[in-house]
Amino acid sequence: MGALDEGHFNVELEESGVNIELGFEEEPETVAAIEDAVKSLLQGLGEDINREGLRRTPLRVAKALREGTGGYRQKVKDIVQGALFPEVGLESGIGHAGGVGGLVIVRDLDLFSYCESCLLPFQVKCHVGYVPSGQRVVGLSKLSRVADIFAKRLQDPQRLADEVCSALQHGIKPTGVAVILQCLHVHFPNFESVSLESSNHHGWVKVLVTSGSGVFENENSDIWGDFLSLLKFRGINVEKAHPRDSSAKCWCPSQATSKTGPANSGMVAAVAAILRSLGEDPLRKELLGTPTRFVKWLMNFKNSNLEMKLNGLVLGRIDTLKSIGEHINSELNLSFWSQCEHHLLPFHGVVHIGYICSEGVNPIRKPLLQSIVHFHGFKLQVQERLTRQIAETVSSLLGGDVMVVVEANHTCMISRGIEKFGSSTATVAVLGRFSTDPAARAKFLQSIPNSTTSGG
Amino acid sequence: MGALDEGHFNVELEESGVNIELGFEEEPETVAAIEDAVKSLLQGLGEDINREGLRRTPLRVAKALREGTGGYRQKVKDIVQGALFPEVGLESGIGHAGGVGGLVIVRDLDLFSYCESCLLPFQVKCHVGYVPSGQRVVGLSKLSRVADIFAKRLQDPQRLADEVCSALQHGIKPTGVAVILQCLHVHFPNFESVSLESSNHHGWVKVLVTSGSGVFENENSDIWGDFLSLLKFRGINVEKAHPRDSSAKCWCPSQATSKTGPANSGMVAAVAAILRSLGEDPLRKELLGTPTRFVKWLMNFKNSNLEMKLNGLVLGRIDTLKSIGEHINSELNLSFWSQCEHHLLPFHGVVHIGYICSEGVNPIRKPLLQSIVHFHGFKLQVQERLTRQIAETVSSLLGGDVMVVVEANHTCMISRGIEKFGSSTATVAVLGRFSTDPAARAKFLQSIPNSTTSGG
Repeated sequence: MGALDEGHFNVELEESGVNIELGFEEEPETVAAIEDAVKSLLQGLGEDINREGLRRTPLRVAKALREGTGGYRQKVKDIVQGALFPEVGLESGIGHAGGVGGLVIVRDLDLFSYCESCLLPFQVKCHVGYVPSGQRVVGLSKLSRVADIFAKRLQDPQRLADEVCSALQHGIKPTGVAVILQCLHVHFPNFESVSLESSNHHGWVKVLVTSGSGVFENENSDIWGDFLSLLKFRGINVEKAHPRDSSAKCWCPSQATSKTGPANSGMVAAVAAILRSLGEDPLRKELLGTPTRFVKWLMNFKNSNLEMKLNGLVLGRIDTLKSIGEHINSELNLSFWSQCEHHLLPFHGVVHIGYICSEGVNPIRKPLLQSIVHFHGFKLQVQERLTRQIAETVSSLLGGDVMVVVEANHTCMISRGIEKFGSSTATVAVLGRFSTDPAARAKFLQSIPNSTTSGG
Repeated sequence: MGALDEGHFNVELEESGVNIELGFEEEPETVAAIEDAVKSLLQGLGEDINREGLRRTPLRVAKALREGTGGYRQKVKDIVQGALFPEVGLESGIGHAGGVGGLVIVRDLDLFSYCESCLLPFQVKCHVGYVPSGQRVVGLSKLSRVADIFAKRLQDPQRLADEVCSALQHGIKPTGVAVILQCLHVHFPNFESVSLESSNHHGWVKVLVTSGSGVFENENSDIWGDFLSLLKFRGINVEKAHPRDSSAKCWCPSQATSKTGPANSGMVAAVAAILRSLGEDPLRKELLGTPTRFVKWLMNFKNSNLEMKLNGLVLGRIDTLKSIGEHINSELNLSFWSQCEHHLLPFHGVVHIGYICSEGVNPIRKPLLQSIVHFHGFKLQVQERLTRQIAETVSSLLGGDVMVVVEANHTCMISRGIEKFGSSTATVAVLGRFSTDPAARAKFLQSIPNSTTSGG
């Protein structure tokens, strides 16, 4: 996504007395350390750290990482202890007083967390339930705030569930706590493994984890059954999801797809320095391979001076006069994977390409279009430029009449301050007659099927 | 929802360097003025402002109102100006460069705003598009941040759309800006008008508004057609929505349903004082009737010492021994409307009631159950207590074996800092055999149909 100008943003925030950039003003040396590490990573990618789009990237990344891991600097005790409310019930036993003593749940809390194995953010739908004991209840929003404290750390889904459960159990001291997390981890293909023909890559790893304490300790208990029934009203079918065992081995795709060969040691050291700056121990067992995995993933987006080899495929410019037999060819829903150069965070989605083709001229084969998309995706990008570059490349093959729509979900739209979970973006490029002929645009746009489920 | 303990929360925030409570520390006298006004309102409702649940309500309301209207203290210029990025395109004309020059849109931004007519929050799905001019694009998240500045004020949907559009036009200076808002305003019935038999009240007022500048000035233009097509991919069908004209008259239901008689003048003056404290002018045309409307609405939740008249309806305690012919009666999806005593914000949803009934005993009629629900809903409440009180009242009619589930959407879960738009809560009360018989609980819970669309 386009850049946030942090300097100006801070001015705005200070004016209004807000500061949602966690810990920035307080620990400039920490931010500076992360900035230096990010500069090393950018240089390792072969980038010019002084070019316009990247100039402020180290600062943005440093602040986003600090914000996204703000949970390390928050305390459950402070949130929960003051939010326990006396609420008279019939008696202090379980399940005897209406509401008080009965089950209380909050469903569909949207959170995000960072995968400790690869440092990419992952999305979490969180459902929390508890059975009050004695005669006190906790403020409902506190369940969300406590979950968020643990989400905003480097995490594994099961540990996240266990930590939220344990924190609520100790903080509220209820009869029991249950936590269910539905986690979604983006699964980038490696650039090298994206063959021209393959489009089976589905792009996400899902896992469901649960954690229970007190009366929820036994997952076959009746109270778990009640909790699951209450989720079902909202269409959340936990039974159908992955069983708990599947999380025994690591879910992160970076564990499975390790590229051969060593990673750039300077870059690896830079990532280790980032982990330390966030307050983590790079020698913690689960983090040992993380810097190397992150660097290997990042190198998918290495700046390259390679030109696409399109020789021999150029079909020659088609006569721009409208001839009988012309039609719009379209290739829809080509996957793309890219990396936002302003935040060093993934964005991905689908590309729709339309072009005007004369009768008798063979359309471009889908695998070639897909490889054009991947070629421009696998680098540090912004969505607007990606759209333009795809259009220009296709145009160079066909002579000009090209329309490209890129639909994307930006990780930085959710894992930054604005946290707009459901939002998506679209950018359009129109070349040649598509820019002057609204009917051609409309015809192409109408050929794109509805898709309310583009991954996120 | 349960309370937020602001004192502790502030401690937590200061520790981590965050302060999402806008303008609180900076303007204690403003907050104190709102607190005093809220105390007047609570006293006008016949409440004891020192009882546990209300003790911190004035402070909470003051801070929530300041936060929810933080847009008055933010400047568009600071956000947008620094976030304009040079991005090379083919030329500076419209629609000629891929992406740059083409349409850029962000869809499905979740916002909330405050209705200037009644002071209740309303939800907004915001879609923004613009056509860059020259060779610069704006950071995508800035579209969201700018929309949020104007949402966080007292608003009317059309003015909100116009202000966002105008601010982006002046801030980015693009070829054109388009804004579409889908707004959802809760429509509380008056307690007095909720007859025993009526359940036609649907609870929401929807309105769709649009605003366009530059190339989007004419809504019949082709570029508007492109924008609407891009929304359609995500299932957003603007054509089907309410036409623009319908927003000419005020959409707020408080305008239509004005109760007769004057409102308590002290309470009206208190609301006017709140408006002033937020930086508004209570004499602005659109706000003239707002304090009176708010007070009349608030008085729906006046504390009353009335007992429910259930004489003659008590059926006597049923034998607790299990007899042949017993079955579970259930009444599902009874609407409820209530007011969170911790935040003075609405929460509403549905109540499901199940009870064990012997053969030959007439079940309780639905209208009576609905009136029990309304009786307990129309006061300052917390969801857990509401659940218990409904269960106890039904139990007093039937002798004990009662289960109540309350499903709710809490305005305070979205219009406070956590902004969890999709979340919902459920509370359960189990009395008599429901507390000891898991099979009975399960049977009742399974009788409740899936409902992923409970209004929000």
